[in-house]
Amino acid sequence: MNPYQAPLAEMKFLLDKVFDAPQTWASLPEIAETVDLDTAIAIMDEADKISRELIHPINRSGDEQGVVHQDAKVITPDGFKEVYNQYAEGGWVGFCGDPEFGGMGMPKMLGVLVDEMAYSACNSFTLYGSLTAGAALCINAHGSEELKEKYLPMMYCGEWAGAMDMTEPQAGSDLRNIRTKATPNDDGSYNISGSKIFITGGDHDLTENVIHLVLAKLPDSNGISLFLVPKIKVDDQGNLGESNGVTVGSIEHKMGLKASATCVMNYDDAQGYLIGSPNRGLVCMFTMMNYERLAIGIQGLGTSQAAYQMAADYAKERVQGVAAGGSPTGATSDPILVHGDVRRMLLNIRVLTEAGRALSVLTGQQLDIAKFGEGDAQAKASRYVGLLTPVSKAFLSDRGLDAAITAQQVFGGHGYIRETGIEQLVRDTRIAQIYEGTNGIQAIDFLGRKVTGDNLVALTEFVTECTDKLTSLTQVDESHKAKVIVLFDELLAAAKMVNDNKSTQPAIVNASAVDFLDAFGHILYGYFWLLMSDAASNEPDAEFASQKRYLSDFYIAKMLPKAKYHLAQVREGDSTVMSMPENLF
Amino acid sequence: MNPYQAPLAEMKFLLDKVFDAPQTWASLPEIAETVDLDTAIAIMDEADKISRELIHPINRSGDEQGVVHQDAKVITPDGFKEVYNQYAEGGWVGFCGDPEFGGMGMPKMLGVLVDEMAYSACNSFTLYGSLTAGAALCINAHGSEELKEKYLPMMYCGEWAGAMDMTEPQAGSDLRNIRTKATPNDDGSYNISGSKIFITGGDHDLTENVIHLVLAKLPDSNGISLFLVPKIKVDDQGNLGESNGVTVGSIEHKMGLKASATCVMNYDDAQGYLIGSPNRGLVCMFTMMNYERLAIGIQGLGTSQAAYQMAADYAKERVQGVAAGGSPTGATSDPILVHGDVRRMLLNIRVLTEAGRALSVLTGQQLDIAKFGEGDAQAKASRYVGLLTPVSKAFLSDRGLDAAITAQQVFGGHGYIRETGIEQLVRDTRIAQIYEGTNGIQAIDFLGRKVTGDNLVALTEFVTECTDKLTSLTQVDESHKAKVIVLFDELLAAAKMVNDNKSTQPAIVNASAVDFLDAFGHILYGYFWLLMSDAASNEPDAEFASQKRYLSDFYIAKMLPKAKYHLAQVREGDSTVMSMPENLF
Repeated sequence: MNPYQAPLAEMKFLLDKVFDAPQTWASLPEIAETVDLDTAIAIMDEADKISRELIHPINRSGDEQGVVHQDAKVITPDGFKEVYNQYAEGGWVGFCGDPEFGGMGMPKMLGVLVDEMAYSACNSFTLYGSLTAGAALCINAHGSEELKEKYLPMMYCGEWAGAMDMTEPQAGSDLRNIRTKATPNDDGSYNISGSKIFITGGDHDLTENVIHLVLAKLPDSNGISLFLVPKIKVDDQGNLGESNGVTVGSIEHKMGLKASATCVMNYDDAQGYLIGSPNRGLVCMFTMMNYERLAIGIQGLGTSQAAYQMAADYAKERVQGVAAGGSPTGATSDPILVHGDVRRMLLNIRVLTEAGRALSVLTGQQLDIAKFGEGDAQAKASRYVGLLTPVSKAFLSDRGLDAAITAQQVFGGHGYIRETGIEQLVRDTRIAQIYEGTNGIQAIDFLGRKVTGDNLVALTEFVTECTDKLTSLTQVDESHKAKVIVLFDELLAAAKMVNDNKSTQPAIVNASAVDFLDAFGHILYGYFWLLMSDAASNEPDAEFASQKRYLSDFYIAKMLPKAKYHLAQVREGDSTVMSMPENLF
Repeated sequence: MNPYQAPLAEMKFLLDKVFDAPQTWASLPEIAETVDLDTAIAIMDEADKISRELIHPINRSGDEQGVVHQDAKVITPDGFKEVYNQYAEGGWVGFCGDPEFGGMGMPKMLGVLVDEMAYSACNSFTLYGSLTAGAALCINAHGSEELKEKYLPMMYCGEWAGAMDMTEPQAGSDLRNIRTKATPNDDGSYNISGSKIFITGGDHDLTENVIHLVLAKLPDSNGISLFLVPKIKVDDQGNLGESNGVTVGSIEHKMGLKASATCVMNYDDAQGYLIGSPNRGLVCMFTMMNYERLAIGIQGLGTSQAAYQMAADYAKERVQGVAAGGSPTGATSDPILVHGDVRRMLLNIRVLTEAGRALSVLTGQQLDIAKFGEGDAQAKASRYVGLLTPVSKAFLSDRGLDAAITAQQVFGGHGYIRETGIEQLVRDTRIAQIYEGTNGIQAIDFLGRKVTGDNLVALTEFVTECTDKLTSLTQVDESHKAKVIVLFDELLAAAKMVNDNKSTQPAIVNASAVDFLDAFGHILYGYFWLLMSDAASNEPDAEFASQKRYLSDFYIAKMLPKAKYHLAQVREGDSTVMSMPENLF
């Protein structure tokens, strides 16, 4: 099996030609000072190299060996610590971090591509850095100057890691019921006591310290507050002191991600520091959650790309049967890539993965404008981030599992064998549909809060911009443009139907949300394919241009119609979903 | 978690009211002597009991412990041998076996339900008996009287097990390239030499002997012949003698089915006996393959049922959030079953599982008529078996994975934890889409051989019977009947389109096959739901009747439209699938 190789041509094409990163970056002074296209390309080349040569080699062995909880310590598989040290030294943990505290200040539009490469190389490994970057983002946004100065530089440089502690056994999707308590101390700190489960990177041996962001309740309050709780106390000079009442109860035995430490964390009067205002912890935590939601979508995207490469390589090498019209080479057996069903599977993965990358780059771009831009542009980008974040999380992670399962099918029986490696992708990526808010929760956030919650304003604005852009394209079939535009119109009509009925049919949002998000995703990908096909037609590389045209034609013919199915589901409403009495389930 | 409980009410309803087993059995003298409805019901009650109390308890522990290959022996997990002994003593291995050689002679129409229960209880365990029954079926159909007398009684009683040895590293879907050799001996036997991979139940400690059915080539022949090769030689008195040059090279490390021994088998001048005619081995093996294909579909069905039960139980117990319109009980937190998206997931699984059971019972019924019937009825049933076998295998196993994944989603983060048990169902059932011919191969068999291969004769006959039956129903909505009938018509039109174009577009069958099978499956399930809803309306249990009506309405509104998507795919043809040059993949 060939090792992972990043799709650099596609990545550069998206940045430069489809989403015009140079223009975006030039409009944002803080980014313009930091990076230009040439630098970005050099960074991507380096990210490809470390993903392939450094991270990917510990992927399979990490799965077989897994994390071990022994003598109250959590031990990562062989090689993880060494690779993490090199990764951190390269500055990748603080890649998009605030330069004032030692981050590299890179745009998210580039960061999503770097993240994709790392996730393609190893899901488990990449989570450690991703959680750290997310925690740092939250501290930077809501923490006091003192906390920022004390913790951020050590997190950006990778010396200390981060974790997000929300879930408790009785409080998962519904965090109202958490029981972890925070008692104020005289010095302004708090004593935190309670237990958390499913804590990714809750403890490990990659770093000396782990900085936990813990949701807890203040005395006599039902509000939820957020606290920074280091595993090991840090003195005023930034030195590590004594341990802080933070211990690992156990590690979870999981379907996959076996090299990622998922911990039960116990807090016994651990010293913590309030982040943001009292009882406003969820708002602060959502800064991290939204970051992680995009990152988890990219976990699915990275998995899709890795799955495609493995399956395509195998389909070119594996010889079995003869092409339906006779062997093109006159051989008695052909590579299985000649078979229509194998091509269908590979094309399915490929078109969803390339459009998925476009979604991640667009979301990254809007995050950058929302963070570094100003005025109307900034406000609009914030609305788009709100729309696109749940879609990126859910649609990319759903397509990630589909891709891994489809790629596994290309391998036939060999795909079920652990040594082949493709079944690990299925197991590793499955959780991406669940954690950081299940994909059902994402869909409800999208349809309930982001779409109908503001009376379709943001969605209409976004769709109008897409259809205007489509109308202006000159190098794609008019009939293809018309198909996507009609579906966008039907999507808006379906959204209006839900919005009009939600007061009299309170369950309609919940019951229709997943289909609505899936419809939007499939239409959006049609839009992306026409953008890409149009942009590629101007590329000097004629093969690249014709490849994007083939893929775009396949998407419009074969995948776009799925949107119709999902729209029909939304239009069907919720009556058949809600009417059966509970005792008949 | 509640232990598995067979859906006995649904099973009895299908047998008695939907497919009229009493009438079918009365028309087949050999079956009529063996079983009537009361006996069948007593048998199902017993099968439920042993599935829950005997088989299910070794399911989780078997997954954790797995099969071990040690000192040239294959050791199954704790409890498997004891449970297998009791299972065999109960006569379940020979349940549908020929009574002349000690089988119980039960109809397959009942056997599919017994198999479903066992697969729901434990996928890995049930394969051992299923492979044995399949091998016995093949020996009974094609073996000499001597072989039958010597081997069948010991296989039906479960003293010896069976296995099917086809795949080699270079020969999977394409068996032309097998290299295993058979050299004739003077005594009429053959010496078999070669290696086989992916052999389910290839060796284990459940039985004293394993009877292998091995594909091999005779000297100077490219034809493929089938041989019976016992692991341990059997003398003329039926006593076990010396070992037979059959050894285990290794066991495979798999994604799931960890308690099922999947072996690399080595044959070193092992003594074997020809089954059927020389060079006609694939025809003989297909007797077993077709049996196993239905069984593997039922593996998917059993998984779906187990997944539904686990997820529905969890959704009733897990309290999280409040219903969209306010808690129905005024509570501050409701069971998650109140949420539309959770209901949607459960209903998806439920309607596909109940219709899937109808497919398995119909296929079993047609197998019984094809085997025990006569004249036109027998000939027609044989055509229907040809049509329905690849559909049962592929559609039931595809839905099995969908069900397990959807049920896992209901569990949220807990679904990713091994102890919960639902992720095991995902891992165990994934292989059902691959082995016994991948689902792509099944679809190509269906569209290429069974549908267009006989100029749509069998499909038209089957569809006409379904639409006539639909027209005669009196207790379902006319609009629902019309929807299914229109789709059946569109299906025939799509089949005609493929048939008309296949000579000029040789890839069209291969490229369209999976979508064609999926379209057929979804329409067929609509037909089953109307049959079930109609039949249930006459049931004395009003709750049962209303439940089937709710489920039927949900299926027609929400699932049937998927057929439109798949039909549109077929109509799109193969141009976008086949046109991209291989080097651009």
